Amino acid sequence: MGILPFVAELGLIDHHCHGVLRVDSTRPEFESLLLEADAVSPLGGSFFDSAIGFAVRRWCAPLLDLPRHAPAEEYLERRNSLHIAEVSRTFLMASGIHTFLVDGGFQPERLLSAEELAGLGGGVAHEIVRLEVLAETLRPSLSPSEFLVAVRSRLASSSAVGAKSVAAYRIGLGLSGVRPADADVERAVSAWSAGRLEDPVVITWLAWEALDAGLPLQFHVGYGDSDIDLHRCDPSLLTPFLRATAGLGVPVLLLHNYPFHRQAGYLAQVFPHVFCDLGLATHGLGHQASRVFAEALEIVPYGKFLFSSDAFALPELYYLGALLFRRALSDFLADGLRRDAFAEEDAHRIARLIASENAARVYEL
Amino acid sequence: MGILPFVAELGLIDHHCHGVLRVDSTRPEFESLLLEADAVSPLGGSFFDSAIGFAVRRWCAPLLDLPRHAPAEEYLERRNSLHIAEVSRTFLMASGIHTFLVDGGFQPERLLSAEELAGLGGGVAHEIVRLEVLAETLRPSLSPSEFLVAVRSRLASSSAVGAKSVAAYRIGLGLSGVRPADADVERAVSAWSAGRLEDPVVITWLAWEALDAGLPLQFHVGYGDSDIDLHRCDPSLLTPFLRATAGLGVPVLLLHNYPFHRQAGYLAQVFPHVFCDLGLATHGLGHQASRVFAEALEIVPYGKFLFSSDAFALPELYYLGALLFRRALSDFLADGLRRDAFAEEDAHRIARLIASENAARVYEL
Amino acid sequence: MGILPFVAELGLIDHHCHGVLRVDSTRPEFESLLLEADAVSPLGGSFFDSAIGFAVRRWCAPLLDLPRHAPAEEYLERRNSLHIAEVSRTFLMASGIHTFLVDGGFQPERLLSAEELAGLGGGVAHEIVRLEVLAETLRPSLSPSEFLVAVRSRLASSSAVGAKSVAAYRIGLGLSGVRPADADVERAVSAWSAGRLEDPVVITWLAWEALDAGLPLQFHVGYGDSDIDLHRCDPSLLTPFLRATAGLGVPVLLLHNYPFHRQAGYLAQVFPHVFCDLGLATHGLGHQASRVFAEALEIVPYGKFLFSSDAFALPELYYLGALLFRRALSDFLADGLRRDAFAEEDAHRIARLIASENAARVYEL
Repeated sequence: MGILPFVAELGLIDHHCHGVLRVDSTRPEFESLLLEADAVSPLGGSFFDSAIGFAVRRWCAPLLDLPRHAPAEEYLERRNSLHIAEVSRTFLMASGIHTFLVDGGFQPERLLSAEELAGLGGGVAHEIVRLEVLAETLRPSLSPSEFLVAVRSRLASSSAVGAKSVAAYRIGLGLSGVRPADADVERAVSAWSAGRLEDPVVITWLAWEALDAGLPLQFHVGYGDSDIDLHRCDPSLLTPFLRATAGLGVPVLLLHNYPFHRQAGYLAQVFPHVFCDLGLATHGLGHQASRVFAEALEIVPYGKFLFSSDAFALPELYYLGALLFRRALSDFLADGLRRDAFAEEDAHRIARLIASENAARVYEL
Repeated sequence: MGILPFVAELGLIDHHCHGVLRVDSTRPEFESLLLEADAVSPLGGSFFDSAIGFAVRRWCAPLLDLPRHAPAEEYLERRNSLHIAEVSRTFLMASGIHTFLVDGGFQPERLLSAEELAGLGGGVAHEIVRLEVLAETLRPSLSPSEFLVAVRSRLASSSAVGAKSVAAYRIGLGLSGVRPADADVERAVSAWSAGRLEDPVVITWLAWEALDAGLPLQFHVGYGDSDIDLHRCDPSLLTPFLRATAGLGVPVLLLHNYPFHRQAGYLAQVFPHVFCDLGLATHGLGHQASRVFAEALEIVPYGKFLFSSDAFALPELYYLGALLFRRALSDFLADGLRRDAFAEEDAHRIARLIASENAARVYEL
Repeated sequence: MGILPFVAELGLIDHHCHGVLRVDSTRPEFESLLLEADAVSPLGGSFFDSAIGFAVRRWCAPLLDLPRHAPAEEYLERRNSLHIAEVSRTFLMASGIHTFLVDGGFQPERLLSAEELAGLGGGVAHEIVRLEVLAETLRPSLSPSEFLVAVRSRLASSSAVGAKSVAAYRIGLGLSGVRPADADVERAVSAWSAGRLEDPVVITWLAWEALDAGLPLQFHVGYGDSDIDLHRCDPSLLTPFLRATAGLGVPVLLLHNYPFHRQAGYLAQVFPHVFCDLGLATHGLGHQASRVFAEALEIVPYGKFLFSSDAFALPELYYLGALLFRRALSDFLADGLRRDAFAEEDAHRIARLIASENAARVYEL
């Protein structure tokens, strides 16, 4: 049940994460940030009674000098008695992540910047540009034709190492397999003057532009908060888009994927530019992460799977994302070794690929 | 492989079940009632060669004083040599269920009533009102406007502790997220004068009315007999309806869910009023129930998951539903304890929540 | 971890496979034939770093007198130093398959015929007629009405023991539940003069004609190469067609099914004429095949599940398909015996049903 030594020592590239909160959290805030619900419900009881809740008490409590399984109230008291920067440093350092690819597009005002995050974690940070946020920021002050030029220019000159689309949240993943013509995009932009971008033509066009700029393109896939319609987040809905973009040679990365991780593995197998991960689910499943991690690795070539935490707001989620990833990867490899499915040196290579080498290759880090 | 003592001793609330047959069954009847097929097929062989078939021979035979794994023919001979009420009492008493929430809307003429069932099982029974049956019963003798009034009045004054929708069987789960206006409902009712209700406006309206009456609302989700189109029974199709009804504060319960139990867990996590179970699959999977049960608990908070048997017609299914639930819950908790995922007292609390406390809270029993 | 002796000794009927290559393969060819991708991608690395790649090195290397886990390069050198017929004979003989049901409709010019295959494998072969290929071959030289007559006549007089539809690749599995009228089929045939058949009316009609001719009808279901849209290959989309054809009494066989194997199991449970398998996935998952195999057997009656390899081009895939099937079946039965879910003689019967008896009954071999 322990972690194989060569897995415990792996340095990790977290290819998809967010910032951590600048301030302490009340218990209701903390509970709701543990998972994807907006708030705790009196109908359903405390979120500490969940896989992730128990994982916090089991694994995070000792890092704050509390016994394993310390009660939730005690944990939060202890946590709030420390400076939040100290808490964040503790969990970030313990994660063993040396490189953070940060999507800073969601609630940036509440969170540490990528730089600050990396500083606390003793690593380096790179930015992922969130396409819809970029578009929503640029739109109000520009004409449609200026908007197209500005988006292209910003992507071409971006210091980001990748782009991210939240099409799943806005229109679902059924993106067209046909590249939108500029005239159609301008028309769609005209009809959208400001506010939340929900136009399929514009959202699809952003994805193409990111690839044109040579930016590896991440898609939110699968579960998230109550904003999504889960059946529209099945990655196989992306097939026409993936078929159309395979020839560009720019990576497309399917994030999270649960409970469609098998579908994601299929796409990563058959399309040369497609990769996937199991972020969010890895810590969200707590002690059950290993089984689903093994499922996610059923048919995906090992050169096509990456580590990410998808941690957001709570530094505990970085630590748990990394720790439960290591345990799951270790369980997977130990099971393979026990079955004599591969040799020891193969297991080492698989581990390095998934922990950091695939990400370094994909993002040219 | 045994059952943890504190799980073996749990009293259960079965929040979704049906009556048991008043009479003996022939072998073909018994086989077809074991699972969801209409009849045994010569092409495919005996249904005793299935997970549930083997579970009957393994677990039920000893309660009729036969050896474990007694041959099917011998089992049925012995069963039919006893009075059916005696057989039913034996299995119901052995289930450890003390409270039965009974949907009596399917084939009531063949089955014991909720009262009779509870009497045999030494417990108490509460009624669940089946919305489509209520509507089909009221419709023929009423005008459309009288129908609306009558449904509302019946729900408002109902002694039932909850309502059930079989929208999955009639129109699929893609219910509109917009509440139907009375005028639209009346128009739809006008077009349906009698017989099987398959109108989406009326079916959606019934669901809203149940919630308005404060009745916890059950939905059939996932697999069932050959009447359903399984892909239309994905619970994530309910998302617009769940989003629209979240503010009402009345529980919605997703029944069965297999093979969409992960989707159901997601919905129960993100919506404050949503709960789920694994009824039908728990006994249908026989000795493999534990793995799927663990999957069902991956991301659902433990305050959101309930026990049900979905037993119908054969008293064996109550016993197997309860027994295989206990084994699966025990396996889940024992695995968590072995991995040190939670403390012993946490395991006890999770067990109590799922066995009865969640149901008692949801249905205000 | 070993294979139960009575499973190791089972003779197998492979109810769905293809021919093997007549010639040696280069490393890029070999790698791309291991799985469903068109080609190895420099972005993603070698396909030997995958479940099936490791399975080749682990299990196939020793049959070519190399050590377990021999490096890929060494394996291919050794393989190409032998005559390809010798390599094929080695793996085919070691598979323990005595009867091959061969779909020769894909790339026949590159592959050994069914006869040649069976000759090398020391078994017998039967043909499965691929409906779309038959139609595409007949169409160019015939008028629409002649085409209908010719298809009927060819199916009626066919020596094939079954037919196969690749509707999944052409139109998805949402076939109509209404039998197309001849006039509609003729109209659709008129609009399609030659080339790839993608008309839903004609494809649906072919499926009905196969059943009319009494030919057990196979459907490709679930994952395959990048030509498919996976979400359109969910077998539950076939429900209207299955409901409409249940009365004909001719078997319908759902092939592969991953990741929809639970949906396939449901259909095989509720429809008297439906059967399923886990071909392709069994070898594609390598050392993880056992878990998915157990999932596939959750609710399907054991008289409804068949063995197939879906091996194509590489003789290794026959051997691995059979070997990993035996391991998975053995793991499933050993787990059931360990849990005392069924008796030893029951385990033997389940094994025989799945290995060959179900196929013999379905195809009347």
